[in-house]
Amino acid sequence: MKTCTFVTGNANKVIEVNAILGEKIAIEPRAFDLPEIQGTLEEIAIDKCRRAAKIVEGPVIVEDSALEFNAMNKLPGPYIKQFLELLGNDGLNKLLHSYTDKTAEAVCTFAFTTGPSIDPITFQGRLKGQIVSARGPPVFGWEPIFEHEGETLAEMAHEKKNGLSHRYQALLKFQEWLAAQELDI
Amino acid sequence: MKTCTFVTGNANKVIEVNAILGEKIAIEPRAFDLPEIQGTLEEIAIDKCRRAAKIVEGPVIVEDSALEFNAMNKLPGPYIKQFLELLGNDGLNKLLHSYTDKTAEAVCTFAFTTGPSIDPITFQGRLKGQIVSARGPPVFGWEPIFEHEGETLAEMAHEKKNGLSHRYQALLKFQEWLAAQELDI
Repeated sequence: MKTCTFVTGNANKVIEVNAILGEKIAIEPRAFDLPEIQGTLEEIAIDKCRRAAKIVEGPVIVEDSALEFNAMNKLPGPYIKQFLELLGNDGLNKLLHSYTDKTAEAVCTFAFTTGPSIDPITFQGRLKGQIVSARGPPVFGWEPIFEHEGETLAEMAHEKKNGLSHRYQALLKFQEWLAAQELDI
Repeated sequence: MKTCTFVTGNANKVIEVNAILGEKIAIEPRAFDLPEIQGTLEEIAIDKCRRAAKIVEGPVIVEDSALEFNAMNKLPGPYIKQFLELLGNDGLNKLLHSYTDKTAEAVCTFAFTTGPSIDPITFQGRLKGQIVSARGPPVFGWEPIFEHEGETLAEMAHEKKNGLSHRYQALLKFQEWLAAQELDI
């Protein structure tokens, strides 16, 4: 089992990915900044995966999270990181003040390639919810304002969250695909 | 005077650029799609200029417009094109419903390089205004909702607009810089 670089600076994500893919892939986390393009979630993940594979010259996994507001035609979408930085959770709520529809989807897109000359493949997971005023510990990004079945992600027990999150849903698809492959990476 | 590719599909922009830079540079418009990165206005223009220069293997001008809402910490900024497509001018107004500050800046960033191995240089122009309900012919993008000194850009006489716009301000800087160069492109 050769190693596969997972581009992230987030130790929790490494644990989550290892827990689900670890039997098939030896994950090697590496934090480096990659420019992200504007575009669809898949385009962004695929482009980032290609750039990373060129740098590491080997197999790579990248991951990208998005938050889609249905009233805003899925915006801020992939730009949620920058919107959160510039507006905060209160400002994200304000974006929806004019709309009665507060529903949203959290989206996680993984892209994987075995090397720089191979087209990356993507796996996407989604979680439905709605945007609410912040509740729960403000530890991780927009989790305090994303409510799923009565609880915000920030209020949710860690194990429960990891067993239903958009990232988990994407990782299940990734795992299922891996199980059907004879990977030689 | 050798030719310089100007990446655009907009004939009016070609006329505006030619009018101000035409004495020093022979502009050759070429419309092709280039992926744009996420980032600051300068980063986006520089990256796009580099990609274009690699493709045409020669001198290139690219241009990028942005619309910054002051209440939203300069968002949507470079993402205005996608925001306009997905929300329309009415939806852009809605983003600011929760804020009393409706001021905004229209920003135009040109990037120019003499070739693929040369770092691009940028020229930026800005126009202050405020976001209002759409007025004037809905011909061009967000011009009906950007008001400058009592008139929206859509209401403004063409010559007046071309003599004060963010694009004009950027082109003046570009022209001034060119005048001081011995360009061999």
